Amino acid sequence: MSSKAPIGVFDSGVGGLTVAKEIIKQIPNEDIIYFGDTARVPYGNKSKDTIINYTRQIVRFLMSKDVKAIVIACNTASAFALDIIKNEIDIPIIGVVNPGAKVAVSTTRNGNVGIIGTQGTIDSNVYSKYIGKLDAKIKVYGRACPLLVPLIEENLLDDPVTKEMARRYTEELLVYNIDTLVLGCTHYPLIKDTISQVVGGEVSLINPAYETAKTIIEVLKENDLLNEFNKYNNHKFYVSDGSEKFKTFAKSILSCEVFETKTVDIEKY
Amino acid sequence: MSSKAPIGVFDSGVGGLTVAKEIIKQIPNEDIIYFGDTARVPYGNKSKDTIINYTRQIVRFLMSKDVKAIVIACNTASAFALDIIKNEIDIPIIGVVNPGAKVAVSTTRNGNVGIIGTQGTIDSNVYSKYIGKLDAKIKVYGRACPLLVPLIEENLLDDPVTKEMARRYTEELLVYNIDTLVLGCTHYPLIKDTISQVVGGEVSLINPAYETAKTIIEVLKENDLLNEFNKYNNHKFYVSDGSEKFKTFAKSILSCEVFETKTVDIEKY
Repeated sequence: MSSKAPIGVFDSGVGGLTVAKEIIKQIPNEDIIYFGDTARVPYGNKSKDTIINYTRQIVRFLMSKDVKAIVIACNTASAFALDIIKNEIDIPIIGVVNPGAKVAVSTTRNGNVGIIGTQGTIDSNVYSKYIGKLDAKIKVYGRACPLLVPLIEENLLDDPVTKEMARRYTEELLVYNIDTLVLGCTHYPLIKDTISQVVGGEVSLINPAYETAKTIIEVLKENDLLNEFNKYNNHKFYVSDGSEKFKTFAKSILSCEVFETKTVDIEKY
Repeated sequence: MSSKAPIGVFDSGVGGLTVAKEIIKQIPNEDIIYFGDTARVPYGNKSKDTIINYTRQIVRFLMSKDVKAIVIACNTASAFALDIIKNEIDIPIIGVVNPGAKVAVSTTRNGNVGIIGTQGTIDSNVYSKYIGKLDAKIKVYGRACPLLVPLIEENLLDDPVTKEMARRYTEELLVYNIDTLVLGCTHYPLIKDTISQVVGGEVSLINPAYETAKTIIEVLKENDLLNEFNKYNNHKFYVSDGSEKFKTFAKSILSCEVFETKTVDIEKY
């Protein structure tokens, strides 16, 4: 495997671009192959079997593009599929949950951590497990927020309806006196301001993207795969549904030059 | 083909059950094979190519169950795929758009008809085309309502947030003095009361399910396929994602006895 090979990053849709953005920022020499499963989005309320099946197909697709490592930039897929898939492939693969859990542990002062995420992520209890391994004394309170992804996908980022739903979802977490709230879905950083308004400035919001990028750097270093020299970036974006929406979103999130997205028949992988 | 064979009915998820319910009510002798594409729901904001591909797979699956006719109980799939698929198979297939258009034409008094539906259904202009064929003088105004399906799937049927979104979506249609509003998505009848509150009692709400059931009866009669005698019904329900949510919804919509749902790997068809 060459250090010049790209890093594969995938998500159910556009949310993972918030992670891709952070990776591009921290290690600008690296090329990214991004896949968004826009034909089958959202993943959040689908079963474990379905998510594992979809993740396997996407990993096969990314490996057909000779990626040197994979980042699962989706909390639901990280929660359900990471532990299984990492035993099936021979290149490094990381998710966003462990990095998010690490930051939550180092951030909380009173030991009460809230997690918001999709139904799948919350039901899996994956954040509790990872946080528990790092510090068994920390109490973790989860709340599924199934409508936040559709609201964000409709671009209602700063809207009374999104604020009302964020308020309903977080109010029961605030009862537990949380001082730290993990944005346990890669879409949520896009409404960080709205969430901050409803939970109050004294609650620290954790976006796992920054720590995920740091983790992939460490993993690449350990495997001698960090790309030290790359004058011209060649990021590539693939989707399973060829609608224009992905491009519009990608431009606003990445704020980089216009790029092409290619449509892939992911079911064939 | 035997008249004792079942009728295939499918939707992206649970919405088509509102159509299945009406068919069961109007022709109780018939058996239904229902398929809900719960692994890939929603269809509403995906591209035409994706929807045609998914519809082909589902039609192949239903035909493997020896159905005598197929009802596409999904407006988006009816809009994008019906005209193509009906040339590819040799059993009768109908959608929900033509029946809905027929009722709208016979209902409107002032010739101003509103359509609410998914982004795909509205962008396809399919209701305008069908209504225009029946009465070219009728003016048709469409509005995509992308958040209504997620809100309904979250069971927020009678909720201030759903009411607010319904108000935003319909207010621009009311400017055109519509007297008839087609519920152009099989989920929407579940929030008929909320929609009625925001558009006012003087606007007639059209649910295409009733007319769709009438249409399939006519089609079966024409093809000598109506099942006259069936003492014990044997409806069967299949989904592409085996989560419990479908069952819960199905029970509340169909209000019939508890039934089993089988999970199908639809990508294999």
